[in-house]
Amino acid sequence: MMGAPVRTSERRDPDVINPWLTGFSCIRCQMELPVGDYPEGCPICLSRGTPASVRPVYGRLPDVVGNPQKRGMARYADWLPYRQWTSLGEGSTSCISAQPLADHMGMAGIFIKNEGQNPSGSHKDRVSGLTVTRACDVGARGIVAASSGNAGASLALYAAAAGLRCSIVATPALQPLHRRAITATGARLITAGDSLERWKTVERMAREGWFPATNYLAPPVGSNAFGVEGLKTLAFELFEDLGAERLDAIFVPTSRGDLLWGLFQGFHQLREAGFIATLPRLFAIEPFPRISRILAGESLDGSYPGSTSLYSIAGSTVTYQAVEAIRRSHGDAVTVVDADVHRDFELLAQYGFYLELSSAATLTGLRTLIEHGAIARESCAVLIATSHGYKDQIVDGAAR
Amino acid sequence: MMGAPVRTSERRDPDVINPWLTGFSCIRCQMELPVGDYPEGCPICLSRGTPASVRPVYGRLPDVVGNPQKRGMARYADWLPYRQWTSLGEGSTSCISAQPLADHMGMAGIFIKNEGQNPSGSHKDRVSGLTVTRACDVGARGIVAASSGNAGASLALYAAAAGLRCSIVATPALQPLHRRAITATGARLITAGDSLERWKTVERMAREGWFPATNYLAPPVGSNAFGVEGLKTLAFELFEDLGAERLDAIFVPTSRGDLLWGLFQGFHQLREAGFIATLPRLFAIEPFPRISRILAGESLDGSYPGSTSLYSIAGSTVTYQAVEAIRRSHGDAVTVVDADVHRDFELLAQYGFYLELSSAATLTGLRTLIEHGAIARESCAVLIATSHGYKDQIVDGAAR
Ligand SMILES: [Zn+2]
Ligand SMILES: [Zn+2]
Repeated sequence: MMGAPVRTSERRDPDVINPWLTGFSCIRCQMELPVGDYPEGCPICLSRGTPASVRPVYGRLPDVVGNPQKRGMARYADWLPYRQWTSLGEGSTSCISAQPLADHMGMAGIFIKNEGQNPSGSHKDRVSGLTVTRACDVGARGIVAASSGNAGASLALYAAAAGLRCSIVATPALQPLHRRAITATGARLITAGDSLERWKTVERMAREGWFPATNYLAPPVGSNAFGVEGLKTLAFELFEDLGAERLDAIFVPTSRGDLLWGLFQGFHQLREAGFIATLPRLFAIEPFPRISRILAGESLDGSYPGSTSLYSIAGSTVTYQAVEAIRRSHGDAVTVVDADVHRDFELLAQYGFYLELSSAATLTGLRTLIEHGAIARESCAVLIATSHGYKDQIVDGAAR
Repeated sequence: MMGAPVRTSERRDPDVINPWLTGFSCIRCQMELPVGDYPEGCPICLSRGTPASVRPVYGRLPDVVGNPQKRGMARYADWLPYRQWTSLGEGSTSCISAQPLADHMGMAGIFIKNEGQNPSGSHKDRVSGLTVTRACDVGARGIVAASSGNAGASLALYAAAAGLRCSIVATPALQPLHRRAITATGARLITAGDSLERWKTVERMAREGWFPATNYLAPPVGSNAFGVEGLKTLAFELFEDLGAERLDAIFVPTSRGDLLWGLFQGFHQLREAGFIATLPRLFAIEPFPRISRILAGESLDGSYPGSTSLYSIAGSTVTYQAVEAIRRSHGDAVTVVDADVHRDFELLAQYGFYLELSSAATLTGLRTLIEHGAIARESCAVLIATSHGYKDQIVDGAAR
């Protein structure tokens, strides 16, 4: 019945694997599963042709949000499936008030959470440490992932730190700056024709004993569930940075929704544990309508292609987790136009924030909601800057 | 007698300017000066033709190193000339044990301090917040700096955050990735023929009321003394990260030695305040012999040109502050060869650290000292990674 081999962790050191981790659960049908790896998500949902991710389940949530003795992601180790992992100093990124920008936009407040301050320069580092640790724990012969850049660069770096073999599968569109970052680590870079072909390569290698860090199904599920759990720490940091009262609306650059889901899970568990009363609304920013079309009634297993320079949030497919995070947080999907994003990239830089184009898109999304009257001007907006401006390739003096 | 106009701060709010700041002092002749701006350094030393930087003097040093209530550079506000400044979340960068790399090198320990995790991706952010705050405080019409990349990108971003006009003077060799980062903020980019011509432009603009953030003298002095003071916080973080017992030898990518001097001042003040007993040795890494030649007896006002791909630590001149920091910490200057640095860039990436070439040069410097028996294998080495690997321009698939 299982769609993929389930490997059970052999190392049971409570300092390493969280002793409160009791199993996994399907995020769609709630089916309960033992601790293991589910690269194809829930086996029941898979058999019905509607793949869905699984999430770790804990017997108890911690009494405090952050351990004051620790900094970085390690502050939140008790909320994670592994309490120790291969770390390169991820987390504790800054969350800066951009009040002059907020005044310009006519908002009460805008905060920018700068995930470009992670070791490889993106939020993916919160995922990679846990994913690599899981792969080592189950004795994988190596780790494999499909990536458009940031995830691959991050995973390759963490795999190198862990002494684990790594293969990154990319399309010919991979930017030279990411190519260099991936190959410098000694990771193998495999070029596939397109996104679907990348997934076939990942699937084949997974069958050969490589640990799949990212999806290989079509329609897709989220990335490795141990890894995605690391993105909860972004929610915990926002709570510690801003307090519950300023967590109104969060703008998230989105492709297949790992970050959206991780944020949702983090806030959901903060509510379960009594730290916040309501969830902030999560707004997925996309460069052409995909999630928007699902929210409008189209099918999750459709293909929604489009063209964009925002390579970090490109892709033509939608995951159940992305839609679920939006619905359950009463958020929405917002489509932005590349030309507007390029202008907002400059506007952000003029206020002191030098972000990857895909991250600058959050401001464009906020602007759209303001223009449509869909967000209260008295509220606070948090823009998740997933990466910095040095992640965009310069061709003839401009980002392409 | 003064070589440059001295402007006295008008804002005396003790929450902003440090009330314990009593004046400045020449780092060479110890001449005492009132609080002010000394872009040409000590007027006495200048008149003797041997320019030297000045440093802030405090009537009292704090009783604690870091304020546990704060994170980032703000932990050390009481050690700085301004206790509040334009902040974008600088400081609290990670300091990671690279034990497998240390084993490979036959050292007891290697720690990598990743300054690429600062907001603009380099240690210059520790300087820029204070410099920009000083420029605003004295009512400058704007700020101007000569830069090969990182300093300009950082200063432009902080000036934008402060709403201050900014001009960056660079040579045609400025990498396109830095050009984009600087101009996106709205800063004016001025191209001068060579390094000396850059300084003439900065000097002319300083006479017109622009606040000079960097040197314009030949032979040069250090950058703005309020700003350089921010680099002390790197020493404070290393002390808090590692404890006194692991502060043996610190490897510092060096051009004109602001970082070297800031580290020295930080450790020196930690010793004055009783937190450490001895100073760690500071090793300046340079891509061709400059400081090495001064240490061997050549003149500080000579020109020591060379060719290198390590653009962040290029330049043909040496400052008194660089030599003084090395002498007083019993360190040395180590010359590295580009080809070796390119190999060590890859080696570092293979252990999980993706650094700018100029930063990878610290490992090459350490290797050289090990080979010469100049460093005890039982000691710990700290490599200061001043910036990340995305700061090197890719041309035809490789960093140029
Ligand atoms: Zn299910
Ligand atoms: Zn003097």
